[in-house]
Amino acid sequence: MADTIKNLQWRYATKRYDVSKKLTPEQREIIMEALRLSPSSNGLQPWKFIHVVDSALREKLRPAAFNQPQITEASDLFVLAVRTDLNEAYVDHYLSAVAKDQGTTPESLKGYKDSLMRTIDRPQPELIDWASRQVYIALGMALAAAAENKIDASPMEGFDPKQFDEILGLGPLGLASRVLLAVGFRSPEDSHQKLPKSRFGKEEVFIER
Amino acid sequence: MADTIKNLQWRYATKRYDVSKKLTPEQREIIMEALRLSPSSNGLQPWKFIHVVDSALREKLRPAAFNQPQITEASDLFVLAVRTDLNEAYVDHYLSAVAKDQGTTPESLKGYKDSLMRTIDRPQPELIDWASRQVYIALGMALAAAAENKIDASPMEGFDPKQFDEILGLGPLGLASRVLLAVGFRSPEDSHQKLPKSRFGKEEVFIER
Repeated sequence: MADTIKNLQWRYATKRYDVSKKLTPEQREIIMEALRLSPSSNGLQPWKFIHVVDSALREKLRPAAFNQPQITEASDLFVLAVRTDLNEAYVDHYLSAVAKDQGTTPESLKGYKDSLMRTIDRPQPELIDWASRQVYIALGMALAAAAENKIDASPMEGFDPKQFDEILGLGPLGLASRVLLAVGFRSPEDSHQKLPKSRFGKEEVFIER
Repeated sequence: MADTIKNLQWRYATKRYDVSKKLTPEQREIIMEALRLSPSSNGLQPWKFIHVVDSALREKLRPAAFNQPQITEASDLFVLAVRTDLNEAYVDHYLSAVAKDQGTTPESLKGYKDSLMRTIDRPQPELIDWASRQVYIALGMALAAAAENKIDASPMEGFDPKQFDEILGLGPLGLASRVLLAVGFRSPEDSHQKLPKSRFGKEEVFIER
């Protein structure tokens, strides 16, 4: 069990990747399933994840992310996007999937629908803020799953979401990019791996009540 | 490695806990370290975690969380709060900790300070929104660490943050509650564990570019 803590200590926001090392299909599956299986408020999954596999496209994205090397050097790059189309049609779409999973009808989930409609009944900017927070749960899940499997990862907010949306054609799909997740294997040259992990101590971070 | 996926499939948002089963100190340490070691944008850790250990206080919080049973029945309850005091003094406080870890002086981290100051240079509501998203990374990390160690967990947004802040005395500390994390062990009576996990399929959640 103590392995979990060791692995979380081992991880760091990787800056330079070994470009020759790629995730195996099994490793890629772990990262993608951690994103997909992530919980979200009310189960709504207000997200999509863009797996950028085209290397020319990754070259094109790099200047829109302050030219950070992870964009082109990491084995895999995911853009975590929020859904901006959270309306009744989306709720119905979600509920028909749930009904199918449970072997029941969407009509029998009326109470659940009412609760979901109340959840999304917010002014649009607030709704997107709420949905964006859910995207960060998926980010955290994937980062922990990566560490647990000794896969290096970089959570990245340093990019221009508007440019990313434009380059990836996300707007017309009702999506907006929120945060990036690069995964792969650290280069021995990456000096950041030698820095001590800076975290506030327990006495500062935890309050007992 | 495939264990990670199995464990993420195993987890679910637990509703009813076995009140007789408590986390061991080692298990509690895993959850708390997953929270504490969580990454955040620029390393700023704009959070504190309230571990509510007083059972009378948990009784008092329960009505402020729609009377959900996890509040009093789970082994442990954490309130994940955002720091609302993200100013230059906070940045300096953080940097002196980093300098100490790296065996250097805060003055030598001037470039880093400039970058941190730009990060927090946003209107207050936007700053708090940004910081709140970081709190959700910690939530995701702790949920994955719990699953990896077969500890049940419930991420909970269904509560009144203002009432929680009031009851826990968070406002004067420059904190605001954002999301709850209950952990413990599922009751065999919890019918939710029998529901199939509803997640959109890969073909819906992932886009390749």
